[in-house]
Amino acid sequence: MNFKRLGPSGQEIPVVQRDGTTFDLRPLTADLDGAFWASDGIARTRVALDRGELTELPDADSLRVGAPIARPHKIVCIGLNYRDHAAETGAALPAEPVVFMKDPMTIVGPYDDVLVPRGSTQTDWEVELGVVVGTTVRYADSPEEAMRHIAGYAVSHDVSERGFQLERGGQWDKGKSCETFNPLGPSLVPADEVDDPQSLALRLWVNGVLRQDGSTKDMIFPVAHVVWYLSQFMVLYPGDVINTGTPAGVALGLPDHPYLRAGDVVELEVAGLGRARQTLVQA
Amino acid sequence: MNFKRLGPSGQEIPVVQRDGTTFDLRPLTADLDGAFWASDGIARTRVALDRGELTELPDADSLRVGAPIARPHKIVCIGLNYRDHAAETGAALPAEPVVFMKDPMTIVGPYDDVLVPRGSTQTDWEVELGVVVGTTVRYADSPEEAMRHIAGYAVSHDVSERGFQLERGGQWDKGKSCETFNPLGPSLVPADEVDDPQSLALRLWVNGVLRQDGSTKDMIFPVAHVVWYLSQFMVLYPGDVINTGTPAGVALGLPDHPYLRAGDVVELEVAGLGRARQTLVQA
Repeated sequence: MNFKRLGPSGQEIPVVQRDGTTFDLRPLTADLDGAFWASDGIARTRVALDRGELTELPDADSLRVGAPIARPHKIVCIGLNYRDHAAETGAALPAEPVVFMKDPMTIVGPYDDVLVPRGSTQTDWEVELGVVVGTTVRYADSPEEAMRHIAGYAVSHDVSERGFQLERGGQWDKGKSCETFNPLGPSLVPADEVDDPQSLALRLWVNGVLRQDGSTKDMIFPVAHVVWYLSQFMVLYPGDVINTGTPAGVALGLPDHPYLRAGDVVELEVAGLGRARQTLVQA
Repeated sequence: MNFKRLGPSGQEIPVVQRDGTTFDLRPLTADLDGAFWASDGIARTRVALDRGELTELPDADSLRVGAPIARPHKIVCIGLNYRDHAAETGAALPAEPVVFMKDPMTIVGPYDDVLVPRGSTQTDWEVELGVVVGTTVRYADSPEEAMRHIAGYAVSHDVSERGFQLERGGQWDKGKSCETFNPLGPSLVPADEVDDPQSLALRLWVNGVLRQDGSTKDMIFPVAHVVWYLSQFMVLYPGDVINTGTPAGVALGLPDHPYLRAGDVVELEVAGLGRARQTLVQA
């Protein structure tokens, strides 16, 4: 079972897919938002499916795929969370999670265009495991408790402008929040259908060339630790997104720094969560 | 004329005040949100007032004062934007604006309690001129154009935990997004009723002791520059908040570092925008 949102940007229809069929979720909810996750939306969806209460959405394959969640209150990101990526960027291994934020308005659909910002010469890719918060987390007692607050997982592309991020004033947010810089999806897979979030392969290709080929087993701080840790500093609300870091293979870390340009095509996937594809376009 | 939101948290009523009278704005809008500012809400309010189309809100003085705007998509902040504050923190003067973000869920009313986070020993104050965006800004051509996108101004308290901000991994966001860390208000004053945003006195007291006593004339990067600059890196949407930096006098910069503790009372004001007052409470 996985959740998607289909239709034009801003008018997406919530759906659930099971066994190859796409069901219209509007009898249960107007959108895949925090209120839905927090009110046992996933369990209610299973019941509705089992009872045959949902009907198939006609022509689902012809619709645009949006991000699988409504716009969140925030996107929190973990930096340098894979040993090989920290090494390739020349950074020391962090003693505790490095935390930064992205504008939540940067979320776009998994097949939407990504804009190369004006003045950019160092637009870079980052495939990540995206975590979607299901219920409010405030000072979680333990990583084990933190895991119970996760609604599900999605492929997240933490697009980054390295010059803006690293050479323009010390704080990273400036290079992380450009328009369209967080493609998300195609699907949200419920947490209880992901056997082990610490053994998921992540891959990313640019123009067909495999650039990132990692696994969440190489995270320095695993998902449970990250959610627990963040909850000590901020409240995590239903629907919030956590980008959990990227493995090695970004342009910043490659010898020739092959940063993205208009016309480039990025494909990315996380095992079990689906595959996304974006074309770069000049802003 | 100024805008407020009155009533219990989450159920605030939008109002406009003129000549000492509080008028119910609900005939015009359900909330003071981005859609209101972007649809000429301020001008429409003036017309409605002049035509006598708004009625007085009964018992307005007995209601809680909320933040003067609905929750924004984002809060963007400028760091080290006053020479004296950069000096007191030991930082070099920035060559261009330092940009970081706060969780937009941290906004609370101007008289609400502020929580000292668990584990905090360095909770600090920062009075700031808050800018509320009125219309979408994307690659503004000039600072002059940028100014035309501002809806208004409000007193903003950029509460900060210095240990979390500076000693826990390099990026500041971790010390800026704790629960209740952005009291806003009491009022939004329309931009066209603020003669010169670069000549506003800002003051902040802790337990009656004047701690910050600055002026927006000492900003390194004035408001027009900040809005223009930000729009080169991210899209600013109607209702977004920009915290434009704080003058000297924060606990971090004082010899005895008198950080905030439960029971402390902070009062703060920006000339012409009103005065706020918060009590610190242990989280």
